[in-house]
Amino acid sequence: MEHITPEGLGAPPSSTGLGQEIYALAERLFPICRSITGDGVRQTLDILSGHVDLERREVPTGTQVFDWTVPKEWNVRSASIIGPDGQTVLDFADSNLHVVNYSVPFKGVLPLNELMSHIHTLPEQPQLIPYRTSYYAPTWGFCMAYDGVAKMPDGLYRVEIDAELKDGSLTYGEYLHRGQTEREFLLSAHICHPSLANDNCSGLALLATLAKSMKARKTRYSYRFLFAPGTIGSIAWLSRNEGRTHLIDHGLVLSCLGDAGRPAYKRSRRGDAVIDRAMAHVLGREAGAKLMDFSPYGYDERQYCSPGFNLPVGMFQRSVHGTFPEYHTSADNLDFIKPEYLEDSFRILTDVIDIVEGDWTPLNLCPKGEPQLGKRGLYAALGGQASSGATSMSLLWVLNLADGQHSLLAMAERSGLSFRELAAAAKMLSDHGLLAAAS
Amino acid sequence: MEHITPEGLGAPPSSTGLGQEIYALAERLFPICRSITGDGVRQTLDILSGHVDLERREVPTGTQVFDWTVPKEWNVRSASIIGPDGQTVLDFADSNLHVVNYSVPFKGVLPLNELMSHIHTLPEQPQLIPYRTSYYAPTWGFCMAYDGVAKMPDGLYRVEIDAELKDGSLTYGEYLHRGQTEREFLLSAHICHPSLANDNCSGLALLATLAKSMKARKTRYSYRFLFAPGTIGSIAWLSRNEGRTHLIDHGLVLSCLGDAGRPAYKRSRRGDAVIDRAMAHVLGREAGAKLMDFSPYGYDERQYCSPGFNLPVGMFQRSVHGTFPEYHTSADNLDFIKPEYLEDSFRILTDVIDIVEGDWTPLNLCPKGEPQLGKRGLYAALGGQASSGATSMSLLWVLNLADGQHSLLAMAERSGLSFRELAAAAKMLSDHGLLAAAS
Amino acid sequence: MEHITPEGLGAPPSSTGLGQEIYALAERLFPICRSITGDGVRQTLDILSGHVDLERREVPTGTQVFDWTVPKEWNVRSASIIGPDGQTVLDFADSNLHVVNYSVPFKGVLPLNELMSHIHTLPEQPQLIPYRTSYYAPTWGFCMAYDGVAKMPDGLYRVEIDAELKDGSLTYGEYLHRGQTEREFLLSAHICHPSLANDNCSGLALLATLAKSMKARKTRYSYRFLFAPGTIGSIAWLSRNEGRTHLIDHGLVLSCLGDAGRPAYKRSRRGDAVIDRAMAHVLGREAGAKLMDFSPYGYDERQYCSPGFNLPVGMFQRSVHGTFPEYHTSADNLDFIKPEYLEDSFRILTDVIDIVEGDWTPLNLCPKGEPQLGKRGLYAALGGQASSGATSMSLLWVLNLADGQHSLLAMAERSGLSFRELAAAAKMLSDHGLLAAAS
Repeated sequence: MEHITPEGLGAPPSSTGLGQEIYALAERLFPICRSITGDGVRQTLDILSGHVDLERREVPTGTQVFDWTVPKEWNVRSASIIGPDGQTVLDFADSNLHVVNYSVPFKGVLPLNELMSHIHTLPEQPQLIPYRTSYYAPTWGFCMAYDGVAKMPDGLYRVEIDAELKDGSLTYGEYLHRGQTEREFLLSAHICHPSLANDNCSGLALLATLAKSMKARKTRYSYRFLFAPGTIGSIAWLSRNEGRTHLIDHGLVLSCLGDAGRPAYKRSRRGDAVIDRAMAHVLGREAGAKLMDFSPYGYDERQYCSPGFNLPVGMFQRSVHGTFPEYHTSADNLDFIKPEYLEDSFRILTDVIDIVEGDWTPLNLCPKGEPQLGKRGLYAALGGQASSGATSMSLLWVLNLADGQHSLLAMAERSGLSFRELAAAAKMLSDHGLLAAAS
Repeated sequence: MEHITPEGLGAPPSSTGLGQEIYALAERLFPICRSITGDGVRQTLDILSGHVDLERREVPTGTQVFDWTVPKEWNVRSASIIGPDGQTVLDFADSNLHVVNYSVPFKGVLPLNELMSHIHTLPEQPQLIPYRTSYYAPTWGFCMAYDGVAKMPDGLYRVEIDAELKDGSLTYGEYLHRGQTEREFLLSAHICHPSLANDNCSGLALLATLAKSMKARKTRYSYRFLFAPGTIGSIAWLSRNEGRTHLIDHGLVLSCLGDAGRPAYKRSRRGDAVIDRAMAHVLGREAGAKLMDFSPYGYDERQYCSPGFNLPVGMFQRSVHGTFPEYHTSADNLDFIKPEYLEDSFRILTDVIDIVEGDWTPLNLCPKGEPQLGKRGLYAALGGQASSGATSMSLLWVLNLADGQHSLLAMAERSGLSFRELAAAAKMLSDHGLLAAAS
Repeated sequence: MEHITPEGLGAPPSSTGLGQEIYALAERLFPICRSITGDGVRQTLDILSGHVDLERREVPTGTQVFDWTVPKEWNVRSASIIGPDGQTVLDFADSNLHVVNYSVPFKGVLPLNELMSHIHTLPEQPQLIPYRTSYYAPTWGFCMAYDGVAKMPDGLYRVEIDAELKDGSLTYGEYLHRGQTEREFLLSAHICHPSLANDNCSGLALLATLAKSMKARKTRYSYRFLFAPGTIGSIAWLSRNEGRTHLIDHGLVLSCLGDAGRPAYKRSRRGDAVIDRAMAHVLGREAGAKLMDFSPYGYDERQYCSPGFNLPVGMFQRSVHGTFPEYHTSADNLDFIKPEYLEDSFRILTDVIDIVEGDWTPLNLCPKGEPQLGKRGLYAALGGQASSGATSMSLLWVLNLADGQHSLLAMAERSGLSFRELAAAAKMLSDHGLLAAAS
């Protein structure tokens, strides 16, 4: 069957270059030492601004955002451990995972056993550096490969973390693609993780690329792209935009979108929002895709779906965070993500946007019996064959369910046909005067 | 357990002769060349009128029925292809499938390659003649076994289709068995297919035999038996009876009811109508039976379930149309249907009618605790045995659910017991003054 | 993860001695010949009164209780069959199952074939004596092992059943543990079976032990413990307490709770009562446990769930009555029940009581975004690890669902976490001022 792409539905992404483009952007973001505040976030937003006109927000240290207070701004210049023999055991310049994120500054000489209480390792993945944070409990620490620690001799170690915690601000960026209406589709990615490629350079790069691609498109919804630090960032955004969250009709949190895992979607707390149904429809056509119920652990959907907001926001990823061995380790590097998976994630996102944009509720203007499709050239001329073709089935389903109670998405759910086919059929029928929009 | 047949419930069909009777009628219908109009339909109605007093309707060519116009009447007298050697390659007298149904008349001499564009075959079933129609696109054509075509030498062929398309009428027949109320049960079979035994001589013969058997029965519902050409016929009927479709409480479209396949039911568009539940109950007790959701492709349920009507009409068949190899070919002949399957289909239909007729909503007049069944002779005298008998279970279920909210059918659905057993139990309890009808 | 037992939730039963205590009580009850009336019931209540202050009710013969009449009181002193050779073939003193319960008195000499029509056996379990009753059909009879009957020679037998049927009363006992409110949890066990250990010495002993253990506990609900003969006893109780059945919020019928079978619960007629959900939650954590829909055959749930009451009362047992070979035979003896299974059943009951007592509907006082758990010491200090601990998940789920629409039980159902964990989390959050009770 020939695929008909109705006007107004986005074309499928070309497979030439788009994945490479997203990957290249992720590659640029990877080396930066990000945290929930600080210059790493600003550098990241600088790079993203090359793709999309971000508005940058600075929320000063000490600002109350709901139950939280914006912390002091953290920056780290360097950090190292020098062994008893004067050899450098650890250098922050080698990996920005080496320092516990938000470590307080420290300089001193310690015996090994005392130092060890400040070193985090992964004994079961002895060659990997873990990623650890301590945003709100003032402490200092290092993260190292377990194999490296095992080789450290007894003796005194010179330790320095040249970090700074000072009054400053929390930074986030947002971009609003204005559609025909004020109703919004929120797309949100966390910007706070240091050199972790999948979590979440992939999400940041994908979101910026999507934002860029939307510029050329006229849409019904307005699309808000939010690049903010996890938890405190989305809470800050919600706090500053509390009066307009009622405009959000759909939303997705994006994370871990570049690995080889099959696409996975975690439903919003509501469970039956249009975004939940649209994602279920798209992923229902992807072999091995996973659909999961909401749970209050994960990314910023935790905040958007808190009971005081309960927004229709789900979470899209590939391998599920916390379940793959590379998660929050130095193995989540640029080898772990691939252009083809980034492109596949991009395509799923645009498919979902196509549904949200293209959905409508038709009314059959000829509802008593079937209209005669043949005289309109909409039906195979010769009858008697065993099955009606796919196009004919789409036409028949749309006509049958166009009672003003079924959106095209609801028709797709009931018929098992794809939204795309049904939208094309509805377009054909409208063009022949057989459908109107239900009021 | 002894089966108790309550008064008012139909006795199960005797296995002596009924299947043979239906088969014999199908056998008489088989040779006629039917179409959506024409004398073949009238001859068919003539034969059926020997079983049931049909009212015959003639709807003139050109009559507007909703979006459709009744076409010219089609009749064919003869048709043939004579080969270059003067041998008869094809003769309509051999099989009325040989001519594309609704072919325009044609007479001429053509070279083989030109003739071939008018010949339809089934290369994967090379010995079978396909069934093809072209009601609304004026063309002519032949249907042949692929093996026969392969033997046709090059050369000039003399071709004639002595058919006629003229102003006339579309014909259908109906019979109304009047019950105590005006509320109707619609039973509809298509009368337009030529020599295809299962599709639908089986349905026509079954329906006429059922109509005949209903004459002797006092019923609550009125039963309308409709023998009409597919699509245009049901649309014509709906158009002429638009004001009384609200009286239809239950309905079934009948087709393909004589083959060895297990019974299959396609739900109405509503999905939860009483007819859907009653058919599910009956087929739930038939090993291998199939229950399918509504879809807008099939037989005249497409029209009855169009959104402007949305009638509670499902479709009953055995092997599902379009899925068995004999479908719409010359192999759908009198060897393909058997008396025992026709009789089995008949029994299922009467079981469903028994449910619709016998269903009611009882109210337990002794609802606080169980009534003492023993003192009324309704309970096994000796206690302590591991299980209550089937009759006792029926009594207990009816008493327990007789809160005025559960019909007997709902009780059957919840308890897993058969409607027949529960109806018998309800009758017993009523006779003992323990139940009344819920108002 | 450390288990936190919040105040107000009962401690799990100690495994030292409790099962033995219940077993010892069942052992004392076992030898007594009980029936639906008579001194056996009174002796049983005497023994139970040693554990709990039972109020004893006597309902006189002839009293109308709904559709039923309290029968004459039955007592049996002795019964025997003496063979043609003067040997004692059967002596009631050996087993009180030997006499059909409620046999009329009889004395006479009969030939074997006539006697045989009064003897009940189990040919498929030839060494076991069946348990049979005939409460409302006046007859006499004996129950014997089939093997014993096979050895009886032809000849005349001297037969005597020294039983008495006289105006008297039906006896039942009840105990009300008063809680903070008048709302009741009804726990009901049948007291009418003679020497059958599982059915229902186990239930009687368990219920008395539970009643005793509740004395020391302050509860929200009042707990009514009912020890009454099956069917007529619960009907008599309902009849005398009709005006207060609306106070019953939860209820369980207890039977067969001492055997090795896995726990089983039959839902109330409502199917979704809190007791149904609480039992489903507890048994959902027991490997091999069975959940069954309501059916109107079983124990006194038949009466409590009759449509005139439709109380939220389910039935708790282990091996399902009527399905195990020992059921209603002499093999249901003290070897068939074990202290560990009685104790396990006790624990399940207290778990369910803990849920009913500990359930409440919290309201998140900080519902916009997550509250900052870290600053309250409620969150792991170091972030970045792959999963949140179990305690953290409980806290997050409670906060997320505390919209005033979810009880803790509903949260347990949605989250898959245990009620106990969620209750502990809700307590923590309340203590930190983050939750209030929804009005």
